[in-house]
Amino acid sequence: MSDVKEVLGNYSVDIIKTIKEDLSVITPENLGEASIYLTQAGGKMLRPALALIVSEAVGGNSKLALKTAAAIELIHTFSLIHDDIMDDDDMRRGMPSVHKVWGEDVAILAGDTLFSKAFEMIITSKDTTSEQNNNALATVADACVKICEGQALDMGFEQRFDVSEDEYMEMIFKKTGALIAAATKAGAIMGGASDEVIDAMYEYGRLIGLAFQIQDDYLDLAADEETLGKPIGSDIGKGKMTIIAIRGLASDDSGRLLEILKDDENSQSDIDEAIEILKECGAIEYAHNLALESVQKAKQVLEILPDSSSKQTLVDIADFVLERKA
Amino acid sequence: MSDVKEVLGNYSVDIIKTIKEDLSVITPENLGEASIYLTQAGGKMLRPALALIVSEAVGGNSKLALKTAAAIELIHTFSLIHDDIMDDDDMRRGMPSVHKVWGEDVAILAGDTLFSKAFEMIITSKDTTSEQNNNALATVADACVKICEGQALDMGFEQRFDVSEDEYMEMIFKKTGALIAAATKAGAIMGGASDEVIDAMYEYGRLIGLAFQIQDDYLDLAADEETLGKPIGSDIGKGKMTIIAIRGLASDDSGRLLEILKDDENSQSDIDEAIEILKECGAIEYAHNLALESVQKAKQVLEILPDSSSKQTLVDIADFVLERKA
Repeated sequence: MSDVKEVLGNYSVDIIKTIKEDLSVITPENLGEASIYLTQAGGKMLRPALALIVSEAVGGNSKLALKTAAAIELIHTFSLIHDDIMDDDDMRRGMPSVHKVWGEDVAILAGDTLFSKAFEMIITSKDTTSEQNNNALATVADACVKICEGQALDMGFEQRFDVSEDEYMEMIFKKTGALIAAATKAGAIMGGASDEVIDAMYEYGRLIGLAFQIQDDYLDLAADEETLGKPIGSDIGKGKMTIIAIRGLASDDSGRLLEILKDDENSQSDIDEAIEILKECGAIEYAHNLALESVQKAKQVLEILPDSSSKQTLVDIADFVLERKA
Repeated sequence: MSDVKEVLGNYSVDIIKTIKEDLSVITPENLGEASIYLTQAGGKMLRPALALIVSEAVGGNSKLALKTAAAIELIHTFSLIHDDIMDDDDMRRGMPSVHKVWGEDVAILAGDTLFSKAFEMIITSKDTTSEQNNNALATVADACVKICEGQALDMGFEQRFDVSEDEYMEMIFKKTGALIAAATKAGAIMGGASDEVIDAMYEYGRLIGLAFQIQDDYLDLAADEETLGKPIGSDIGKGKMTIIAIRGLASDDSGRLLEILKDDENSQSDIDEAIEILKECGAIEYAHNLALESVQKAKQVLEILPDSSSKQTLVDIADFVLERKA
């Protein structure tokens, strides 16, 4: 697992450099600074690294995918900046969020600028064909529409306790999975893969994206508090719909779980009680199995690729999604 | 002039229809409605119509440019939605602005959605080559970066009374001219024009865009109040930097103009006094001549095109920029 972090770290060097170069031309100064800020703040760089690794795994040269990979990180950052405004989150990556530093107006604009730059970077990639740039851009644009739809769905779930499992899965796919899938697909496109392999790489990204999000829900209840860096059960405290809460609500006839989720001022013992209900009805295990299944399917999908160290890294990343503790 | 409005109106039918079709798939419902709202609210459709007319004037079939034209209107609408949030403008096109109806969060997302959809529409145009779609998209993406930079510059001008003419011209080019230039260039690209003609069409768009914005400044002081639909001199009342104010400040040694611009609570007689100063020092005439010159240059640029009714429409649109009274 630490190997995966190391691998992501190695890829991130070129990505961060490319982003910095491409954003350095933005004026005026405050917009340039606000745009570049989060990109240099030590994100995991999972999405762009995936694009580069996939481009190698399909037999391509990852240098040719670098602009597209960097662009995908810009799209991710754009969505974080706008989400932080909407959710009024003060902190991001251990630093004050963009709208806390520059105000909401500049934060909206910084997000828009990253968005614009991202498309410019993909479409002006010099080392790949027009067709490749086209396909990669269409993939990313499709993911962007889905990110917006996913965020709107997520906001619509607030104060709703009748969200179905299907609705939830659609939301997390759109909000998180779609861009990861776009990253792996775009990597395959830029690596010159066949249509069949390109589709398989989209599926791989989709599956690990789902596993990633479900694992987040799982860790909120099953992690070690110190490693997680926030209290166990905080999703329950906030009344947040997760796959586990949805499953639990479907099996809890007592109505107690719903009561706790609806309550804005739960004590720790209420939250512990909810966790107990979720454990007993098998909702926590259900989520864990769902994530496990997604990862297994993702690894099966990889069998279409010839063996290589890059392919092995993709296998390791799939495992990493479940092995991470925070 | 009424002919130009009629021509724009005729082109707008297909544009509005295309937009409606392409946005109809957006979910959830509130995001779909918020995204489509302003696009169906009777905008002038100047930018998309220009793209279509240019595509015909260079010898192409405007049907092939329709998706790109519609996409450019979406980009324009996206920027209006986000600008209205930043400027806290309550009304747009005679209706409550998007954030007034759906709230700021959904308005941010609706803008982002239009942005994403626009790129998707250009890149998936079926009737043009990958290369054409690529070039059109790069043109639009470049304009989007400029729109953000222009809005940031404009916000930076607030409470600044030492804005230079060059700074102002850069701001209006980026904020308004760049997308008009992108529309005329993209129309030329989709119409299959040569590189030389494509560049000329960008220049035509740039020039009428500048004239359009300068004429806005001019109308604020020289129009008929009833036709304009707002009080004469409202820019002065708000202390807004315009090309006229900048020119006036440079020649007004008395310091009275600066005093009036800085004052938040001007009476009508203060504003009339400022207008008198601006008239006397020739600042109003200067702006009018600048707009006139831009329009003349724009018409000269059109000489590269063979004669046709579409070319004549482009000439008429250039004249319309100055002939309009509001």
